[in-house]
Amino acid sequence: MTLLAIDWGSSSFRAWHLDNNGQVLAQVTTDRGVLTMQGQDFAEYVQQICGSWRPLADKVLMAGMVGSRNGWQEVPYLPCPAAVEDLSKALVNLNSHLHQNLQLVPGLQCTGRDGMKDVMRGEETQIIGALHLTDTPDALLCLPGTHSKWAKAENGAITEFSTFFTGELFAQLTRHSSLAGVCNPHVHHEAAFMLGLEQAGDVRGLLHLLFRPRAAVVTGQLEAEQAGSFLSGLVIGSEILGVSQGLDEPGLLTNGRPLLVVGSEVLNRRYQKALEFYQLPCRTVSGDMAVLTGLHRLATSQ
Amino acid sequence: MTLLAIDWGSSSFRAWHLDNNGQVLAQVTTDRGVLTMQGQDFAEYVQQICGSWRPLADKVLMAGMVGSRNGWQEVPYLPCPAAVEDLSKALVNLNSHLHQNLQLVPGLQCTGRDGMKDVMRGEETQIIGALHLTDTPDALLCLPGTHSKWAKAENGAITEFSTFFTGELFAQLTRHSSLAGVCNPHVHHEAAFMLGLEQAGDVRGLLHLLFRPRAAVVTGQLEAEQAGSFLSGLVIGSEILGVSQGLDEPGLLTNGRPLLVVGSEVLNRRYQKALEFYQLPCRTVSGDMAVLTGLHRLATSQ
Repeated sequence: MTLLAIDWGSSSFRAWHLDNNGQVLAQVTTDRGVLTMQGQDFAEYVQQICGSWRPLADKVLMAGMVGSRNGWQEVPYLPCPAAVEDLSKALVNLNSHLHQNLQLVPGLQCTGRDGMKDVMRGEETQIIGALHLTDTPDALLCLPGTHSKWAKAENGAITEFSTFFTGELFAQLTRHSSLAGVCNPHVHHEAAFMLGLEQAGDVRGLLHLLFRPRAAVVTGQLEAEQAGSFLSGLVIGSEILGVSQGLDEPGLLTNGRPLLVVGSEVLNRRYQKALEFYQLPCRTVSGDMAVLTGLHRLATSQ
Repeated sequence: MTLLAIDWGSSSFRAWHLDNNGQVLAQVTTDRGVLTMQGQDFAEYVQQICGSWRPLADKVLMAGMVGSRNGWQEVPYLPCPAAVEDLSKALVNLNSHLHQNLQLVPGLQCTGRDGMKDVMRGEETQIIGALHLTDTPDALLCLPGTHSKWAKAENGAITEFSTFFTGELFAQLTRHSSLAGVCNPHVHHEAAFMLGLEQAGDVRGLLHLLFRPRAAVVTGQLEAEQAGSFLSGLVIGSEILGVSQGLDEPGLLTNGRPLLVVGSEVLNRRYQKALEFYQLPCRTVSGDMAVLTGLHRLATSQ
């Protein structure tokens, strides 16, 4: 069978036409995320972008925010722990003229010790793919992005995870706040990034650290061109140090379980650098490869 | 002598006409902060708003962002420790047709143990006023706001301080981010605020906590009307817990030094509630009273 595999997130649309073995026959990426659809018909958009593959595919499988309240159809979250079999059993059929075999991957939710819930949509599929690609049933996974996810996998099942607001915070602050004029998010300055990592552990916490780029620039301690990378180091450092303090288990990061970083090339490099700084070795996995592998695995495990 | 005392911050203009004893003869507040001036003439604006008091005043003294790079005239920061005498000696004369005796209060800077600098403009004057009003030469002060300041006073001098990005972060997130549709910043829900205070100490840190309001709403754990107060509790709690971990001295908050909260009525109430939750008793001081008292003290200490 061939598969039309779609990862439809908040801010991007990615589709692959996969053959029986999961090899990529064709692919397409657009910036038409779920948040930009604003009433546009979802089926029509897929037909417009992937119409030529559709008649060839035996199945269409979609993951990501396309299954959220603001997506094509809301799909309930599956509870953790969840393995490939649990997820593939829980795929939701969608009635649409687009294809007679169209399914959505459910997101996951987990409940922390304090009773508060956390959620993901799309990352569960990347995790399934990354575990398969690396042949690692037990791992800690970091999926950097708008809302970074850190997840624990045991015996191939996702047992718990935590979300971090890192990417969105950085984007918001460099776009709208009093840091917007101070921090250039597009220039990477390695030494300033490292300085941010060094200082990220300040006991006063992130709310204090967020004022530092501005104070450093007005007092001449940093150039404006360095402040964006300094801020990036502060927030990525805070995330990693936060994880190393918790995710429900002290010492989680250093207990020998392999650490996989699954994301874009730029973020993988940035996080690998940061993890090295804290002496936490990791392996990187391409986020694209992970999600298409995950979709293929889920489609073929039924 | 009578004094025209002006607190000119980023987002507001506040002026008082004070008699010889510091009693208020007249006052005015506008939203014409320094950031909204955009090339408008500063002297002209004061003349327009306070013109009728000007001929009666022996002196005009201004504090706040009016002395910053984007203000009327940039005034260098004074280093800590700084007492009333240091600040009043460092008042900067401004040549203007507005008044022959027109001065600006300098801001303060301090350098932490890690060598990084922090800065304030305007709060030094509030602190001088608050110490005078409460007759407390030794205190810890919390000035909640866009950029909250926590400062230590010893023997009437400001010895060190730390800034927290709390107010601006809350405003930015509830205005622009993915939390904007989730968190209503204008509804106060006491129990949700308390829940935020309870959870603010999560070891994973603030980047994780910032995702919680959204996760709690999409999983039905909180109503949308509660999420804004929950977020408020999370960030104010993070600030207080951050201070209690540091400000260069462990146990700073609990070593018997009085804690003064100096701000608007709404913020003073909110912070007092939060401090009580963490069993940290405090006294509140009106931010307006503090700044006009500080300006009067500085004007009469020369």
